[in-house]
Amino acid sequence: MSRKKGRLFVISGPSGTGKGTVCRELLKEIGNEFSVSMTTREPREGEVHGKDYFFVTRETFLENIEAGNFLEHATVFDNLYGTPKDMVVNRLERGRNVILDIDVQGGLQVKKAMPEAVLIFILPPSLAELRRRLEGRGTETAEKIEKRLGQALNEIRLIGEYDYYVVNDDLDEAVALVKCIMAAEGAKVPEAVRPVIREYENESKQK
Amino acid sequence: MSRKKGRLFVISGPSGTGKGTVCRELLKEIGNEFSVSMTTREPREGEVHGKDYFFVTRETFLENIEAGNFLEHATVFDNLYGTPKDMVVNRLERGRNVILDIDVQGGLQVKKAMPEAVLIFILPPSLAELRRRLEGRGTETAEKIEKRLGQALNEIRLIGEYDYYVVNDDLDEAVALVKCIMAAEGAKVPEAVRPVIREYENESKQK
Repeated sequence: MSRKKGRLFVISGPSGTGKGTVCRELLKEIGNEFSVSMTTREPREGEVHGKDYFFVTRETFLENIEAGNFLEHATVFDNLYGTPKDMVVNRLERGRNVILDIDVQGGLQVKKAMPEAVLIFILPPSLAELRRRLEGRGTETAEKIEKRLGQALNEIRLIGEYDYYVVNDDLDEAVALVKCIMAAEGAKVPEAVRPVIREYENESKQK
Repeated sequence: MSRKKGRLFVISGPSGTGKGTVCRELLKEIGNEFSVSMTTREPREGEVHGKDYFFVTRETFLENIEAGNFLEHATVFDNLYGTPKDMVVNRLERGRNVILDIDVQGGLQVKKAMPEAVLIFILPPSLAELRRRLEGRGTETAEKIEKRLGQALNEIRLIGEYDYYVVNDDLDEAVALVKCIMAAEGAKVPEAVRPVIREYENESKQK
C-alpha cells in the first residue's frame, strides 16, 4: 500500500475516567506521538514542561489565541488549555498518527476544524465509580467533586458526536480496545480507492 | 451497556488469499458463530458436511433458491454457493456476531440486503504471491490458476464497496487485525445513542 497521511485521534472523557492514564499507556506501547497542549494551570506533581504540557502564563496564552495558533482551546475550571495547530498538522503530514488528550468541547472543535479526526470517548463504568475515583485522588474538595460529576454528565450527553466509546473498567482492556480502534481505522478502505487497485493492476500488466 | 443485536461481518477475498484460514482461526480464538453455506461442489479432503458446508445436490439447491431461503447465492466455477438466511438472522437476534466467508459478489448482495453488514476484504500481498499460493495447493490446473488470477483482479476492482481491507501477509497479524476491526465496530457510538446516555442520567437521578 502507498504511504498514507497519519490519522488524528481525539481521546476525551470526563475528568476521572482515566483517559490520561489510557493515553500514557498508549504512548508507552505503540509510540504514537502525542501533541503537547499548552495550559495556564499550575503543574501537578511530576508533570514536566514540554512533555505533559507547555505551562505558560495567561498573557502568553492569549497571544497564541490572537495569532491563531490553536486547533482548539478552552477554559476549564478557570484555566486555559489549547492544542498548538502546527505540531499536529506537521506530524500528520509526515505520516504519523497523532493522539490528542482533550476535553469534549475541544474534541468537537477539532472535529469541526478537521472532520477526518477520529473521536474516542472514554466512559467510567458508572457515576458511582467515577465519584470513588475522584475522591480517591484526595486532591479535590467535596464541592469540586460535585462540580466535576455534574460536568461529567454534561459531557456524556455529547457522546453522540463521538465515533467510538470505550468503558474504562479494566485499564488493560480499555487500552487494548483503543489500540484496536486505531488499527481498524488504518484498515478502512480509503474513499479514494483507486491507488490501491492500481498497484495490483500494474503488477498484472507487468507480466 | 444495554444488550445489543449481533453484528454481521462479511469476509471476502480472491481465491487463494487465505480468507478461509483467517476465518477458521477467528472461529478457534473468539468462538463467534459462523454461518454454514450451502454448496453443490464436491467436498475437499477433510471438509465436513454441516460444518464447512452443507453439501447438497443441484436439485436441492435450486429448491432453496425457489423458496427464497438464501441471503445471497452465486455460481462460482460452475458450482452453486448460498448463505441460508434464517440461520444468520436468528443468530443476530440472539445478540451473537456472525461471520460470513463468502465471495465478493455475495458480499455485495449481503450489503444490499443488510446495509448494516460490515464488509472486510482480504488481500494477497501481491498477485505474484497469490500465484505461488495457488500453485502450491497442487490441486489446480495451470489453466484454472490463470482463470483464478484474472478473477482475483476483477474482485479487487470492487474493493471500493468494502469497509475494511486486510493484507494477508502474515496469518497471525491478519487474524489480529480482523479481530480488532470486529472489536472496534462493537465500540462504535450507536446511531441511537439515547439509551447509553440514559443509563448515566438515571444513575445521577437516583442519588
